[in-house]
Amino acid sequence: MNVLQETLDLISPADQKAVDRAWLKIDNLTKPIGSLGMLEEIVAKLAGIYGHTNKVHFKKNIVIMCADNGIVDENVSTCPQEVTHIVTDNFTKDITGVAALASFTGTDITIIDIGVKGEFNNPLIHDYKIMNGTYNMAKGPAMTRYDVIKAISVGIRTIDRLVLEGYTLFGTGEMGVGNTTTSAAVLSVLEDISVDIATGKGSGLTDEQYLHKKKMIEKAIHVNKPNKDDVIDVMAKVGGLDIAGLCGCYLGAAKNKMPIVIDGFIASVAALCALKLSPYIKDYIFPSHLSAEPGSVYAIEALGLEPILLLKLRLGEGSGCPLAFTVIEAALHTMLSMGTFEEAKVDSATYVDIRED
Amino acid sequence: MNVLQETLDLISPADQKAVDRAWLKIDNLTKPIGSLGMLEEIVAKLAGIYGHTNKVHFKKNIVIMCADNGIVDENVSTCPQEVTHIVTDNFTKDITGVAALASFTGTDITIIDIGVKGEFNNPLIHDYKIMNGTYNMAKGPAMTRYDVIKAISVGIRTIDRLVLEGYTLFGTGEMGVGNTTTSAAVLSVLEDISVDIATGKGSGLTDEQYLHKKKMIEKAIHVNKPNKDDVIDVMAKVGGLDIAGLCGCYLGAAKNKMPIVIDGFIASVAALCALKLSPYIKDYIFPSHLSAEPGSVYAIEALGLEPILLLKLRLGEGSGCPLAFTVIEAALHTMLSMGTFEEAKVDSATYVDIRED
Repeated sequence: MNVLQETLDLISPADQKAVDRAWLKIDNLTKPIGSLGMLEEIVAKLAGIYGHTNKVHFKKNIVIMCADNGIVDENVSTCPQEVTHIVTDNFTKDITGVAALASFTGTDITIIDIGVKGEFNNPLIHDYKIMNGTYNMAKGPAMTRYDVIKAISVGIRTIDRLVLEGYTLFGTGEMGVGNTTTSAAVLSVLEDISVDIATGKGSGLTDEQYLHKKKMIEKAIHVNKPNKDDVIDVMAKVGGLDIAGLCGCYLGAAKNKMPIVIDGFIASVAALCALKLSPYIKDYIFPSHLSAEPGSVYAIEALGLEPILLLKLRLGEGSGCPLAFTVIEAALHTMLSMGTFEEAKVDSATYVDIRED
Repeated sequence: MNVLQETLDLISPADQKAVDRAWLKIDNLTKPIGSLGMLEEIVAKLAGIYGHTNKVHFKKNIVIMCADNGIVDENVSTCPQEVTHIVTDNFTKDITGVAALASFTGTDITIIDIGVKGEFNNPLIHDYKIMNGTYNMAKGPAMTRYDVIKAISVGIRTIDRLVLEGYTLFGTGEMGVGNTTTSAAVLSVLEDISVDIATGKGSGLTDEQYLHKKKMIEKAIHVNKPNKDDVIDVMAKVGGLDIAGLCGCYLGAAKNKMPIVIDGFIASVAALCALKLSPYIKDYIFPSHLSAEPGSVYAIEALGLEPILLLKLRLGEGSGCPLAFTVIEAALHTMLSMGTFEEAKVDSATYVDIRED
């Protein structure tokens, strides 16, 4: 489809010259070189994305992709499927975890119905519904390739629109009962790691239910035989509309040269899908936290990135993004306000580079 | 001495009933129980400290203890000793890392000269100088027991004064060339771990200098034979005035029932010293981040606490505290703004407790 291919053609690596200029500036600030650790790395990465090392007006938005998953018919979650619909609606009422954290940090949220079962009568939810939840992947493909590409396009276009509205820093969130199941399936196939390792207990399963969940993921992979070298095929057969939509958000952010923050497990798996479509997207994404969902470690590792926060979160919804936004903003503020060695009357030669320790 | 003993007598455990009330509230919010991880734990801990679960006006202050260490005569640091004096002075000029992060988060800083070599002509630095830097611990005790107790009292009285000024959330910072050396020595003695493991490269040492640093720490321990069961003795023989001063800050915060955040390695070791004086202080302290200084892992583990941020910081100065403050504020804001299961029209029975995963 055009939107996806056009986007892939337009994505280029970050501006390495701006990254180099940022490091020159950072390494001239009054501190042992490298001692502000990840705050320095964040600033250098931002420079590569925005193409400059100046002040940025951070206007922040978390895109929450909401969708149902047919696999819930196999009892892989303790949550009834209606919870997807209820919580999606609740995102507009400022009572959810992500809404509380977003309001604390001055972040807006964009709620996308990309495949929730049932209709909404709520103008605050963007209706880009592709279908009323996916099919049961334990019996056949969750959706068609066409649906995946359509869902990716929704993500791309959402970011395009938000960039036009002036947003400069993005986050990713999701809501969908059963989506730790689809994410574990996609991760397991893409990274060739066992379902046992990729799968967690989601919103809470007994040991017996947990075994059953893993069995269903294995069944879905066995029935559909996704081709690990074709990420669209993997998403279509054992993925979800939320994963595909978020995959599009990462691509859209990279195309628009804007930074985008990953929330938890599902969002990490979506980022991994985007990485398979375009290796350059790694330059544009920041993981927020290390989710307590066990597959997260593997997803973040596969992305080759490091999380900023340790908070043992496993809520999803994009709830890890607002605090990561604050760290990103603080990092840039710090590098722009600190004095140089000269201003501090400290001889830079007294400080050795400690980055390689 | 009176101030220390009086303080120890006044420290009591956190209010367990308030902690229980907080968990009842938290577990009734619309999210899988436990899914906000450490944000929930922070709120429950705050309730125990403040004795209630209501809104708090967070007025934030980082106390920075600045002192010189005689051990620098043995070339354990690549930084010349004057850097302690220069950077202490720079804290008043808003050009340091901690100042930048503090201004971003609306945090005040309190700069204490507890033992910097040389005088200051700067009214923004509090003069509680006990001596012009400690003695060289490779040749004999760094200071007397009397000096340690005096330094602890400076920390306690500083917090007492700031509480009177309305501050409700504290952070700890330090500046002192040679203080990763003293901190490694104290950690090694108190926790019976080898100098090899407890010691890092500080602000940057070559492999050869690093070996020498460890040899000097071993020499200091051998020469002084500190009694590991007497933490005052350990601080006097192989510690520093900054460590003792910060130890007093933790005790002062616990006495005043106020939360206090640990910055990096030196501040963690000081917290460990405070814990040896009063086990209850654990209820009042929050580690901010896992410092890149290798001994930090052991210090934080010995405290039995978990850091909030992963940022690979190793600047010191209290630079980890401002962002930890923001997470603490965000945690309380979130728990006070989220809706209950009833408000969210979600049946709480659909969500299983996932804390024990």
